[in-house]
Amino acid sequence: MSSDRVVPGFIARDSQAQHRRIDLVRISTDGSAASTDDVSVEEPLEITITSQGLSSEKESSSSITMRTPGNDDELILGFLYSEGIVRNLNDIVSIEHSTPANSETGLHNTARVTLASEITFKRQEMERQFTRSSSCGVCGRASLQTLLALQPATTTDAIRVSAGFLQNLPDKVAKLQKEFGRTGGLHAAALFDAEGQCGLLREDVGRHNALDKLLGASLKADGLPLGGNLLFLSGRSSFELLQKAAMAGIELVASVGAPSSLAIEVAEACNITLIGFLKQDSCNVYTHPHRISTR
Amino acid sequence: MSSDRVVPGFIARDSQAQHRRIDLVRISTDGSAASTDDVSVEEPLEITITSQGLSSEKESSSSITMRTPGNDDELILGFLYSEGIVRNLNDIVSIEHSTPANSETGLHNTARVTLASEITFKRQEMERQFTRSSSCGVCGRASLQTLLALQPATTTDAIRVSAGFLQNLPDKVAKLQKEFGRTGGLHAAALFDAEGQCGLLREDVGRHNALDKLLGASLKADGLPLGGNLLFLSGRSSFELLQKAAMAGIELVASVGAPSSLAIEVAEACNITLIGFLKQDSCNVYTHPHRISTR
Repeated sequence: MSSDRVVPGFIARDSQAQHRRIDLVRISTDGSAASTDDVSVEEPLEITITSQGLSSEKESSSSITMRTPGNDDELILGFLYSEGIVRNLNDIVSIEHSTPANSETGLHNTARVTLASEITFKRQEMERQFTRSSSCGVCGRASLQTLLALQPATTTDAIRVSAGFLQNLPDKVAKLQKEFGRTGGLHAAALFDAEGQCGLLREDVGRHNALDKLLGASLKADGLPLGGNLLFLSGRSSFELLQKAAMAGIELVASVGAPSSLAIEVAEACNITLIGFLKQDSCNVYTHPHRISTR
Repeated sequence: MSSDRVVPGFIARDSQAQHRRIDLVRISTDGSAASTDDVSVEEPLEITITSQGLSSEKESSSSITMRTPGNDDELILGFLYSEGIVRNLNDIVSIEHSTPANSETGLHNTARVTLASEITFKRQEMERQFTRSSSCGVCGRASLQTLLALQPATTTDAIRVSAGFLQNLPDKVAKLQKEFGRTGGLHAAALFDAEGQCGLLREDVGRHNALDKLLGASLKADGLPLGGNLLFLSGRSSFELLQKAAMAGIELVASVGAPSSLAIEVAEACNITLIGFLKQDSCNVYTHPHRISTR
C-alpha cells in the first residue's frame, strides 16, 4: 500500500476534532467560578482486519480501541507493524471505512484493513503465544521470548547523546505539543535525532496509541527501522511500549515516568538504552548506558 | 462464592513481589554514579472464564492483562463486576489456578474462573455491542448507551464534600501509597468516605487494574454499591475508569489529571461529580457540582 492508495477521505485530517470546549466550575483559594476549558476527545475506533481472498466474515478479526481521533491510518499501520503482522506497506492492500462518517460527530470510527493474501492475522493464536512458553508457562520471560520470536529490528548503535541533551527534552516536547498545552490530557511520543531535532510527534489520550501513530507515520514515510533515533515518552514505560520501540529498532527510549520491571527486561534483551524519571537536572539510566556521555 | 470458597493459596498474599531491586546509573548535575532503586513489577495474568456445566474449551474465553502481581482475585472480581458480567459473589462458582506457580518467579500467572451456570460470558458479543448502536454506529454515544444498558448502580446523593476536603486528598493518598513511594511506578485508586477516611486503596502499574482491584475488594467485603464514597484516581480519567465507577455506584470521582471528553459524558449521564486537575490550591469540577460546597 502506498500512501496514495489509502482510500480518499480516510482521516489524518487536522480538521478532525481532537479537543472540545466544555463548561466547568473552577474551585480555587478565591472561591468557585464558572469557567470553560478544552478537553481531549476520546472516541472508539473499531478496526476489522481481513486478508485478500477471504470472503467469510468468520476469517476477520475485530477489535476496538479508545483513541483521540485523527491520524487513524497511522494508528492502524503502527499497531500492525509493532505486533509483527506487517513488515512494510506492500503487506497491506487497503484501509477503508466500512461505514460513512458518524452523522453527529463527523468522525470515521470504523476501519477495515485488508492484508495481502499471504499475510494471516490470527489474534487468538497470537494472544495464546504471547505469554506462554513450554519452559515457564505464562510469565514475563515468556512474553519477552514471544517478542524476540517476532524478530525485532536490529539496533545499530548509531546514536550517542549527552546528559545535557536528555535534560533539554521535556522542555522541547512541551513546546512542541500543540494539543497538550490546550487540554493537559494527551500523552506524547516524539522522535529526536542525535542533533536534538524532533522529526515526529504524535499525541493521544492513550500512550500506546500515540506511539502506534508515530510508528505508522514512520512506516508511511518509509522511515522504519528507526535506528539513530531517540524515542521520548511523556508517561511511564511499560512492556507494551518497549515492545513497540524494539520492533521499530529504536535504540534510546527516554520517559518522564518510571519504568516497569518488564520494560527494563525488554530494553536489556533488545539492546535499548532505557531512561526514566527524566527531569531537567537528573535522570535514571536502567540499561545499556554506553550510549550516554555525561559531559 | 464466599471468600472462604476461593481456592486456598490463591493470591492476595502480601508476600508476592510487587517491586524488584535493580541496578542503574543515576545522572545528575553532579555527574553519573552507579545506584540501585526499586521498580514496580509488571507480569502477565491470563484469565480464562467459563460457565458451570460447560465442558467444551470452545465455550471458554481467555484474555491476558499486564498487571502488578498481588490481589489478583480482586482484580478478576472487579473486572467481572464492572463489565456487568456478575452482580454478586453467588454468580461465581470458583477462581482457581490452572497451573502451579511459575517455577522462576513463584507467581501464579493464570487463573480459571467458573461462573454459575446461568451466567454467560460472550466477550465477542459484548465487544460488538460495546460501541455500536443502530442510531449512530460506532461512537462515544453508543459506548455510553451500552454502559447504561448494563444498568449501573443508582447514585444516591449520599455524600457532600467541601473544597478543602478535596484539596487534602492528594497528600493523604501519597502518605497511604506504600508502593508508590518506593517505585514511583504505580497508579492508585482509593475510596474515601465523607469524613475523609480512606477505607480502601489499591495500586497497580495499570490504572484500570488498580480500580478493578478496589471494586473486587469491595465486592468480597459485600460493600457494593459504593454510594456515599469518593473515588480518588492518581492519573487521568478515561471512559473505562468512569464506566467502572458508574457500575459501582460511585458518586464522586476526583483525579489528579485531565478527564477525556467521554469520561465527562459518562459522568454527566450517570450523575457522577467528576473532578480533575486536583491540586492543593485548586481543582476543576466538570459535572454535577452540587455535591461540593466551596466553604
